[in-house]
Amino acid sequence: MAHILTVLGLGPGAREWITPEASEALGAASDLVGYRTYLDLVPELKNTPRRHVSGNRVEIKRAREALDLAASGKRVVLVTSGDPGIFAMASAVYEVLEKEPSSWPGVDVRIIPGISAMQAAAARVGAPLGHDFCVISLSDIRKPWEVVENRLVHAARGDFVLALYNPASKTRREQIKKAITLLLEHRSGAVPVVIAQNLGRAGEQVLITRLDKIDPDIIDMRTVLIIGSSQSREVERADGSCFVYSPRSCGG
Amino acid sequence: MAHILTVLGLGPGAREWITPEASEALGAASDLVGYRTYLDLVPELKNTPRRHVSGNRVEIKRAREALDLAASGKRVVLVTSGDPGIFAMASAVYEVLEKEPSSWPGVDVRIIPGISAMQAAAARVGAPLGHDFCVISLSDIRKPWEVVENRLVHAARGDFVLALYNPASKTRREQIKKAITLLLEHRSGAVPVVIAQNLGRAGEQVLITRLDKIDPDIIDMRTVLIIGSSQSREVERADGSCFVYSPRSCGG
Repeated sequence: MAHILTVLGLGPGAREWITPEASEALGAASDLVGYRTYLDLVPELKNTPRRHVSGNRVEIKRAREALDLAASGKRVVLVTSGDPGIFAMASAVYEVLEKEPSSWPGVDVRIIPGISAMQAAAARVGAPLGHDFCVISLSDIRKPWEVVENRLVHAARGDFVLALYNPASKTRREQIKKAITLLLEHRSGAVPVVIAQNLGRAGEQVLITRLDKIDPDIIDMRTVLIIGSSQSREVERADGSCFVYSPRSCGG
Repeated sequence: MAHILTVLGLGPGAREWITPEASEALGAASDLVGYRTYLDLVPELKNTPRRHVSGNRVEIKRAREALDLAASGKRVVLVTSGDPGIFAMASAVYEVLEKEPSSWPGVDVRIIPGISAMQAAAARVGAPLGHDFCVISLSDIRKPWEVVENRLVHAARGDFVLALYNPASKTRREQIKKAITLLLEHRSGAVPVVIAQNLGRAGEQVLITRLDKIDPDIIDMRTVLIIGSSQSREVERADGSCFVYSPRSCGG
């Protein structure tokens, strides 16, 4: 029988977003592999799997370790937050498998999807992703900044809503500023923006602002931004509460 | 106390994708509102809520009905498949609330996110959404086809992976053909394409092909397509199985 490496997304952090499929896989695991922050989000498990903690930014090493453990017969779950298929570990696992085709021949990979941060952020404020949108990582660690800029420009020209992942870190402070400047060349500063941090975790904060009023200093690596299209609207209700949504229809 | 309308996504169809948050809301509902196909995906519930079935394509009527029921004190859950915030009912509810600001003043809206079809499709084949991507509805019922074309062109020029929703229906047969023709002007016909149908339901089918080999005749309203970027790859493993993924890095 083939060994299986399960790559699993917990969702943004709250237990109520962990799917039954993910819970079942966690409950059957002998070994969990993951970045410490994500392993800390795993609920207590009766099966008490062994935990293999790794640092951030060592995705390839972590993918190899998980594949090795699976090849040795362990029931391994590689844990990520959000959806493993969206800017997370699934791609790193397949990258390793492509580069080393003769390693791990007996290991099948199973991906378990999860709620991604943009979905939780959208749900907190309304329906900003209710119409066509683009999802872009602002990290230029593994791609040239020119590629990011080109995508931002085309997303803006296509009048897409944008969901921005990895907008900043302690050391990457300029990317989000450059992105805002670039988007303001193509889009009104008045479009609504959602800034969401620590979704479903302690310190959750969701802020509604506008493109020309984003404070880049508050943006960190646990932030996801949703930037409205020309059609997206912030609406105030009679009780003073606000929602942001993107209509299903739009003018020509 | 405010009345609450809950708008909830079941995920693509399988029970294992219904989040605990969604299950809890269903278990507390007095009334369920939704399109018949989606209500049929709801598991049996001990609380036996009253079911208000509506046809497809009457989103605004359905949204008003759900808001009316909530205003009357019912614990209403408006049920959708996938994520209610991605081409689903959440946007229709907010549209009604914006247009009729003095109606339903005492009703708060709560959105419960779900796994969207593109995420389940991606998980079945690998990690095709592992890098920047665009999500586009090909329906031109509520937006001019020129808007769709403009977005397809910019998504192609930005070399985004594309997830295409509502690619066709019984009457809309030309849109997917036009979209493929347009994309082929900007992108190699060899890029991998994932065609997924009835995910997590009876008749699930997931096909890997390439952009210049898509058979438009098999595409229906329960299909989601993922079209690779220039960087996306289909890889065959030693055992003959295949995966599709988009690497985290890319050339300049």
